[in-house]
Amino acid sequence: MSLLMIPGPTTPAQRVMLAMSRPLINHRGPEFKLLLEEIQTGLKYVFQTENPIVILTSSGTGGMEFAVSNVINKSDTVIVPTMGFFCDRFAEIVEACGGRVSRIQIEWGSSVKPDMVEEAFARERNVKAILIIHNETSTGVLVRDLAEISRIAHDHDALVIVDAISSLGGVELLTDKWSIDACVTGSQKCIAAPPGLAFVSVSERFIEEAKRVNRGVYFNLKAYLEYMERGQTPYTPSIPLLYALSEALKMIREEGLEARIARHRKCAKAFYRAIEALDLEPYPFEYEYRSKTVIAVKTPKNIDSEELVKTMRLKHSVVVSGGQGKLRGSIFRIGCMGNVSAYEVLATVNALESSLAYLGYGVEKVGVGLAEAGKVLWSS
Amino acid sequence: MSLLMIPGPTTPAQRVMLAMSRPLINHRGPEFKLLLEEIQTGLKYVFQTENPIVILTSSGTGGMEFAVSNVINKSDTVIVPTMGFFCDRFAEIVEACGGRVSRIQIEWGSSVKPDMVEEAFARERNVKAILIIHNETSTGVLVRDLAEISRIAHDHDALVIVDAISSLGGVELLTDKWSIDACVTGSQKCIAAPPGLAFVSVSERFIEEAKRVNRGVYFNLKAYLEYMERGQTPYTPSIPLLYALSEALKMIREEGLEARIARHRKCAKAFYRAIEALDLEPYPFEYEYRSKTVIAVKTPKNIDSEELVKTMRLKHSVVVSGGQGKLRGSIFRIGCMGNVSAYEVLATVNALESSLAYLGYGVEKVGVGLAEAGKVLWSS
Repeated sequence: MSLLMIPGPTTPAQRVMLAMSRPLINHRGPEFKLLLEEIQTGLKYVFQTENPIVILTSSGTGGMEFAVSNVINKSDTVIVPTMGFFCDRFAEIVEACGGRVSRIQIEWGSSVKPDMVEEAFARERNVKAILIIHNETSTGVLVRDLAEISRIAHDHDALVIVDAISSLGGVELLTDKWSIDACVTGSQKCIAAPPGLAFVSVSERFIEEAKRVNRGVYFNLKAYLEYMERGQTPYTPSIPLLYALSEALKMIREEGLEARIARHRKCAKAFYRAIEALDLEPYPFEYEYRSKTVIAVKTPKNIDSEELVKTMRLKHSVVVSGGQGKLRGSIFRIGCMGNVSAYEVLATVNALESSLAYLGYGVEKVGVGLAEAGKVLWSS
Repeated sequence: MSLLMIPGPTTPAQRVMLAMSRPLINHRGPEFKLLLEEIQTGLKYVFQTENPIVILTSSGTGGMEFAVSNVINKSDTVIVPTMGFFCDRFAEIVEACGGRVSRIQIEWGSSVKPDMVEEAFARERNVKAILIIHNETSTGVLVRDLAEISRIAHDHDALVIVDAISSLGGVELLTDKWSIDACVTGSQKCIAAPPGLAFVSVSERFIEEAKRVNRGVYFNLKAYLEYMERGQTPYTPSIPLLYALSEALKMIREEGLEARIARHRKCAKAFYRAIEALDLEPYPFEYEYRSKTVIAVKTPKNIDSEELVKTMRLKHSVVVSGGQGKLRGSIFRIGCMGNVSAYEVLATVNALESSLAYLGYGVEKVGVGLAEAGKVLWSS
């Protein structure tokens, strides 16, 4: 069996996977209502919110489209800091809704900063919303200043829509305290449930705006809120995925969110320490903006990252990802999410060191990365 | 454990449910490509088509929106025969896309007929598409004349979009032979996989039209076709649901589509025979348009169908559905789908007879429905 270390989906715990095979129930019956209540409670804890959370049967991109299409009308101006592949997808969704994208162009590997956001708002009038990717999965960059950016946007009366698909449940994100109007995540990343569900928390103001737009059917907020009141979803839900989610959320409460975030931080630190010991360079070039959930690393000169990824998979059964879009061939990415622990970190570092050596890079380095990772993991 | 006999989701076989707990794989890797190929082959057999079939992580309604939003532009005229709850939803989707709905109003419990379609086309000019619900789940009516209706629509140069969510895999539907441009179904009905996936077959002409419209992101056909060429989906797929689907499709090939359709027909016949023996009346009032997959029955006078459904569930652990929308309280519906066999039919008829007697209807009838069902099931 392979060790899946891509930046999502991550491997759920066995009890989560087995939960899927429980007998199906009527999604219009009383047992379903109880299941949904349990899930709402669990999600509110992970989101740190009192806002209702919409549960969609879709990928994270579906959740992003939901968050945009419900509030963005034709010709609305939307500020989008673009710093990677998924930021571009966010912008594409705005354009598909007829919105006007005002980009903050940011060098890939770097993060948007509050002063850039101030500047963008100074430049534009009547901005309907700002869309922020909390953790850019394609470059391994984590936006640290979300609270501050949200404050600036609200000062300019804009909605704050956050894609936290590869961060929520693994790093700190306080939906209510940071006044996020719509926070989007998926089941298959830090929450460590199987893929197929997306979640979007919606603020009162978001709900008000959505009433005016009232777009589409499958992603129409109004329908979800109406059915939520009776403990249902408007369209047939994927009951096995909800069983798994319920179990995964239970595990998050058992561990505690704080401990979970600390575990992600520690595993990420072990990865970065190992990478430095191997004389490799993380792709994000600002130390403090390195992601705690997606470790993006430049491949050494003369090695194609696709080749490295393939070697790790075929020779060591460890599955990591290459680069997306223009980064294909030049970086590789490791998922540091969900149930990640010393076991996954060490097996991955071992596969990385060994595969690099096999491809002719740093034979003398084999074991060095492991030793450094071990030092981080050892400390309590 | 309860016996789930609602008109979808139906209970998948154990091997299908257990398939979901297989280890997750990288959806951008080589194993995934093989999985997707296997599924395409299996789906093409069920659809009886050579057209590509798009796989969506969504409910059936998502599939309906996909089929409409990719080809219907603002102000396009779309003919929609409305004969139940889901027809109305189809019309709502057209309107959400800015299309103009030209309804063929049909009494609930009855079916659209070819002459009504001829008439509608005579009345309208430049019709972009006709949307047909093959099997209306809310009323238990099956459209028998789909081939003929499709021919008429094509004579008028309209696209034919069919919602076969509660029929495909359980009754005859020949996508290619009947020239259906887009055929939509879901995983959780006659295919007997868990809920969460929708499938849409798309004809060459549908693809051409979609290129001109190019709407949205999550439901944008272009993205699906592009990724399909590399053996991927554009957005993270729900791998466990695909494992289950693959297993369910294998079971369909093992049984053979013809035998599967015959089994559905026989079980439906047993249900109708039992119902008549109990002096109950099917909701569809035209004998030949009674559905083979959803048995809709009028509740006897003085009995509320919600009460009957509750009694069957609490006293006999058999879960059937009440009526939807304006039929709430006056009819009940039994799913006759997927893995349905003598066991499910008999347990359901027994629960029905007994519950009716408990509620004061026909105590002398207990056993009579079972006996009649048994006669049908006995014949080879």
